[in-house]
Amino acid sequence: MKTILIIGAGKSATVLIDYLLANAVKKERKVIIADHHLDHLSEKINQNPLCEGIRLELNDENFREQLISKADVVISMLPANLHPVVAKDCLRLGKHFFSASYESSEMREMAEEVKAKGLFFLNECGLDPGIDHMSAMKIIDDEKEKGNEITLFKSYCGGLVTPESEGDNPWKYKFSWNPRNVVLAGQGVSRFLMNGKFKFIPYHMLFRRTDLIKFKAVGNFDGYANRDSLGYRQVYGLENIPTIIRGTLRREGFCKSWDVLVQLGLTDNSFQMDLPRDFTHRMFINAFLPFHATRSIEEKIVSLLPWVDQEILDKISWLGLLSDEMLPRFKGSPAKILQDILENKWAMEPDDKDMVVMQHHFEVECQKGTKEITSSLVIKGEDREHTAMAKTVGLPLFLAVDLFLEGEIKLKGLHLPTLKEIYEPILEGLEKHGIVFDEEVNWKKSNEKAN
Amino acid sequence: MKTILIIGAGKSATVLIDYLLANAVKKERKVIIADHHLDHLSEKINQNPLCEGIRLELNDENFREQLISKADVVISMLPANLHPVVAKDCLRLGKHFFSASYESSEMREMAEEVKAKGLFFLNECGLDPGIDHMSAMKIIDDEKEKGNEITLFKSYCGGLVTPESEGDNPWKYKFSWNPRNVVLAGQGVSRFLMNGKFKFIPYHMLFRRTDLIKFKAVGNFDGYANRDSLGYRQVYGLENIPTIIRGTLRREGFCKSWDVLVQLGLTDNSFQMDLPRDFTHRMFINAFLPFHATRSIEEKIVSLLPWVDQEILDKISWLGLLSDEMLPRFKGSPAKILQDILENKWAMEPDDKDMVVMQHHFEVECQKGTKEITSSLVIKGEDREHTAMAKTVGLPLFLAVDLFLEGEIKLKGLHLPTLKEIYEPILEGLEKHGIVFDEEVNWKKSNEKAN
Repeated sequence: MKTILIIGAGKSATVLIDYLLANAVKKERKVIIADHHLDHLSEKINQNPLCEGIRLELNDENFREQLISKADVVISMLPANLHPVVAKDCLRLGKHFFSASYESSEMREMAEEVKAKGLFFLNECGLDPGIDHMSAMKIIDDEKEKGNEITLFKSYCGGLVTPESEGDNPWKYKFSWNPRNVVLAGQGVSRFLMNGKFKFIPYHMLFRRTDLIKFKAVGNFDGYANRDSLGYRQVYGLENIPTIIRGTLRREGFCKSWDVLVQLGLTDNSFQMDLPRDFTHRMFINAFLPFHATRSIEEKIVSLLPWVDQEILDKISWLGLLSDEMLPRFKGSPAKILQDILENKWAMEPDDKDMVVMQHHFEVECQKGTKEITSSLVIKGEDREHTAMAKTVGLPLFLAVDLFLEGEIKLKGLHLPTLKEIYEPILEGLEKHGIVFDEEVNWKKSNEKAN
Repeated sequence: MKTILIIGAGKSATVLIDYLLANAVKKERKVIIADHHLDHLSEKINQNPLCEGIRLELNDENFREQLISKADVVISMLPANLHPVVAKDCLRLGKHFFSASYESSEMREMAEEVKAKGLFFLNECGLDPGIDHMSAMKIIDDEKEKGNEITLFKSYCGGLVTPESEGDNPWKYKFSWNPRNVVLAGQGVSRFLMNGKFKFIPYHMLFRRTDLIKFKAVGNFDGYANRDSLGYRQVYGLENIPTIIRGTLRREGFCKSWDVLVQLGLTDNSFQMDLPRDFTHRMFINAFLPFHATRSIEEKIVSLLPWVDQEILDKISWLGLLSDEMLPRFKGSPAKILQDILENKWAMEPDDKDMVVMQHHFEVECQKGTKEITSSLVIKGEDREHTAMAKTVGLPLFLAVDLFLEGEIKLKGLHLPTLKEIYEPILEGLEKHGIVFDEEVNWKKSNEKAN
């Protein structure tokens, strides 16, 4: 009997745990779930004879080592920066390691030893990164096998709510995952290639330079560039591709309004404010506007950012930022104060369902011309626990562990799911669970090139 | 015979050294000048019988200790982050310490021990910080003594070139000091108080929110807010002042054009580029602009930043940023690449002279109404070595050391030159050397208050 240890049992682990438990008896596997918070170790777990829930203090090295020693396979669902701690234990104790997070440089330093010890370490096997890699690589490998050349690859992903759950929220956005990451999203510089030209977008320009991304099933979105897309040329074997960009999706119109908050400085996380205890939302926003003897705050916003129209002002007003309500906190970075305000306004209602959207766009030079492939995925959550996010993060991980334990993935070493041997059976498994891309092919006429 | 040790003999130390040497014989003082670079220890030094030039490797603890042991007073002209190293030695070895840099938290931690050991440590005794503190405190103390209340204090300073040295440079700016600091100037968040309202300006908004600062003698300047002005309420004893702002001066029109470089991301120092070895200035600027099939780079700049007019484009073009010239470097942050380009264009010619400008603006509530005081300083350099910068940094330091050794400053402990006992004799000394503020007083009519 094999033992699977999951470390970290938060929101995004629910579906993963469900699948592992549902298969435990049939596949004769023991499942141990370790978490710092006891309430993450729900009753459901304790009712299953093959499942054990254990409280783990990650800093307790001895206990951690004891626990990992019992396992054959370890899945880390911890925050990204904590993976190396677990991965190093796995390396020392000879255990296989799985995560849905980006492969860090610390992880890459272990690569040789992982291989030498005959272990399998798989990262980036969730949604984004994960399903994005696998679905893209399938198309890339297929086209390459046909002798075609991929000249453009754009890939966008977003975690939002279903159209039905948007309600009267003019932003069409609610927090379906970590609010802090949403408020800070895009900070740093975004880099990509467009028609052979290097492009760099500083954060304060990011939400002004968006693409319109259309989904037949669920309408239009703004896509903004996401960090460093250049490194993906190597990851995807597209070293000479002239256009590559990865990005994030928000509902159409979101970015233009979010940009106002960015421009004013409300998403700044670089310094701490300690505001008087009578500060209102309106005073908070006014602190980022120039002084003027007679103009209102609304007039000052428009004067400073001339593209702001009534629709944008209405969205800002809907957030309560122009109200005389007291701030939810007086100490903290502007981003943290904004986050607390947004957490009130963008909270999911009990019946709301989240939605994951992903779209790849390829241009492929074939013998008969240029082919455009648009591959789209829309997954809606079932309920508060079985969210689209938890499903699309958990299922690829479950399938990877399952296929590995069944001997259907025979690889050793440190890997991403960009290899056919990994992505092919996982994509097949995802399809059986309704995670299927909708693919559309068109033939293009001309292709101009400029700056 | 007292011994004065100067550590660091770079560009800004020339005038300080001149004054110390000119007074050495008369005042019976020995002067030791220590620097890492031998060429900073010029012939002039070696010809003076009371002066010794010594090569110092700052990391060589033993040698450093030997050297400091010989001195009665140590003046650190090192980069700001190295002062604590020297100050700690002085504390241990019982030597007095002087610098023209900001009093750091490390320095403040030494305060008690400095006092206990009967030592005198004086920081912020150069130009800015230095002359700004002293000249402002004189007015503040004077007004307070009269029973008046200061309700507004704005203080601006800039290091530029004389109008005659501006030549045909449309930016009216040349590097009269550290180019790196000029390119990165303003990064972070600027904070100040305006009519009782807290104001925060993020970097990407800074150069759009300037004040026009007028000098009768030398014309108009743009003033932009400089980092954290709030802390100066305490430093200046103006705890309840409703308006306080400190800022930096550039020639009128500079900021509007510099803002374009900031908006595009050319002053970003947060990531490293590694560009193809055929990259031109024009390709560099294009990397920060959106792709467009037909628009020129000039058209794209205007489309992205609609306030850009021909005058601004001409200034950018004058820098060569729109040319097909090869980049001076291909690796480095955008800011570093930009700095290298600017160092070619903004270099001081042999006959150019630098200029220091400073202006304080006060509003004072008196019995008979509101008084406006404008106090302006303009200092022009004599030649490449005797710059305005070196004079205004070096002379206050020289005077402080001189007055201390003559027993005219009798204080002990860690201090800034905001105390009357320090600033009064130093300002008198400065006046004798032509460093005099031009003061103008007007009476104000009404004073509206709003957002």
